[in-house]
Amino acid sequence: MNTRAIGIFDSGLGGLTILKTLSQVLPKEKYIYFGDTANTPYGSKSQATVTRFSLDIARFLESQKVKLIVVACNTASALALADLQKQISVPVIGVIKPGSLKAVQSSKNGKVAVIATEATVQSKAYPKELLRLDKRLKVTQQACPLFVPLIEEGWTHKEGGEAIIADYLAPVIKSGADTVILGCTHYPVIKSKISKKLGKSVRLVDAAEVLAEEVQTRLTNTHQLNKKGRGSLKIYASDAPSRFKRLAKHILGRELKQVYLKKLN
Amino acid sequence: MNTRAIGIFDSGLGGLTILKTLSQVLPKEKYIYFGDTANTPYGSKSQATVTRFSLDIARFLESQKVKLIVVACNTASALALADLQKQISVPVIGVIKPGSLKAVQSSKNGKVAVIATEATVQSKAYPKELLRLDKRLKVTQQACPLFVPLIEEGWTHKEGGEAIIADYLAPVIKSGADTVILGCTHYPVIKSKISKKLGKSVRLVDAAEVLAEEVQTRLTNTHQLNKKGRGSLKIYASDAPSRFKRLAKHILGRELKQVYLKKLN
Repeated sequence: MNTRAIGIFDSGLGGLTILKTLSQVLPKEKYIYFGDTANTPYGSKSQATVTRFSLDIARFLESQKVKLIVVACNTASALALADLQKQISVPVIGVIKPGSLKAVQSSKNGKVAVIATEATVQSKAYPKELLRLDKRLKVTQQACPLFVPLIEEGWTHKEGGEAIIADYLAPVIKSGADTVILGCTHYPVIKSKISKKLGKSVRLVDAAEVLAEEVQTRLTNTHQLNKKGRGSLKIYASDAPSRFKRLAKHILGRELKQVYLKKLN
Repeated sequence: MNTRAIGIFDSGLGGLTILKTLSQVLPKEKYIYFGDTANTPYGSKSQATVTRFSLDIARFLESQKVKLIVVACNTASALALADLQKQISVPVIGVIKPGSLKAVQSSKNGKVAVIATEATVQSKAYPKELLRLDKRLKVTQQACPLFVPLIEEGWTHKEGGEAIIADYLAPVIKSGADTVILGCTHYPVIKSKISKKLGKSVRLVDAAEVLAEEVQTRLTNTHQLNKKGRGSLKIYASDAPSRFKRLAKHILGRELKQVYLKKLN
């Protein structure tokens, strides 16, 4: 047994969708979440910059003696995971591999689509992993750069927001994909809206669920599950912790006690 | 005469609207522009963080021996100007004062509205300055947090974008203001669209023009105008210079030769 915490980080709030699922599956674990609100968003930035931000956070989590780090951000997983795994001493798990595996298992017609940020799309991380798992797949990618600001501003249910969502999803519908990967941790917030546009026959892959299974398996196999803990959560944000606290409520569905300010660079 | 360059900075691309006007008014000057694309956007971040970013940039411009620094970003002007003026050895000019002065001169019915980022609105920098100039004014503020992403994604002329613009401007129309300050350097890009929604009788104040006059006056009074230069421009971005170069074309209306990568933190 290992009673040390699990570290999780994201460019901002999105990773809370993963934290939420994870703490439902493994409620006895301690969690330390880091939201990089001083540098958010990552989705329009370069690999070098996203890697630099990610390494700073991972080193901070390492200093907090976590037993495992979850990269709860698709952009950081796509751009920085290899460097993190090389330079950090504890295991680092990203969202691309588990999401891709679930999509391959789900698709019946061999057509998979990925919706994500511009940086994740340009990295081709999902197509590479999907085709490694099944080289006959037909993969379509669609960058949706306005989804994150629309979600953060709560605009997705208003008139303009609806039109923008429909516009981004049109090529996805046209591709004929029967499985669509939600390739950004913000997107599960509008899962039902996306599902309505794509139709019932299209299956949405939300990395949070697969990732939770992956973490559980990894900790079980290495005898590191915390079986007797009471569960706890400590949240750090690199800027504006009170704003983070206010917005987090919408994602977690409950009020946070405290969000700590921690500047890294 | 002083042949040293004028330094200008913004959180990203928006300040190019000011650079463009400035180099039309003072074409013989040398310009050094810094776009903080690694940390963009500023509009949703705290005063401490925006001040830290701004000081790093101003110190870099100072090391480049500029004779004057223009803060071509409303958020940085609203949140960091006082600290910059204290800690930087060359004069630092922001956009709030000249914009407010022009608005006071323009308004006939004493009702002025400000549209800006969330951080600029919360700082109350415009209302404070406007009321200092004329305490009888009626000032309305409206945060438009989706304008910047919509402009950067080129979505303002599409269906969803139009609806969002109309929604944000409704309270401005309701306020009865005859003068509206474009309180973010991105907004002049959609000036005609905003004007169309507000109606012909509403005057829009674009800080770029007033700021150019302010810089000209300041340099003339201190005998620092460059009267014999041939004009030049050097642009630095803290991340993804090729993306900056591609997007800058839309604002400047011409291709840039080169954008240099310069990491500051």
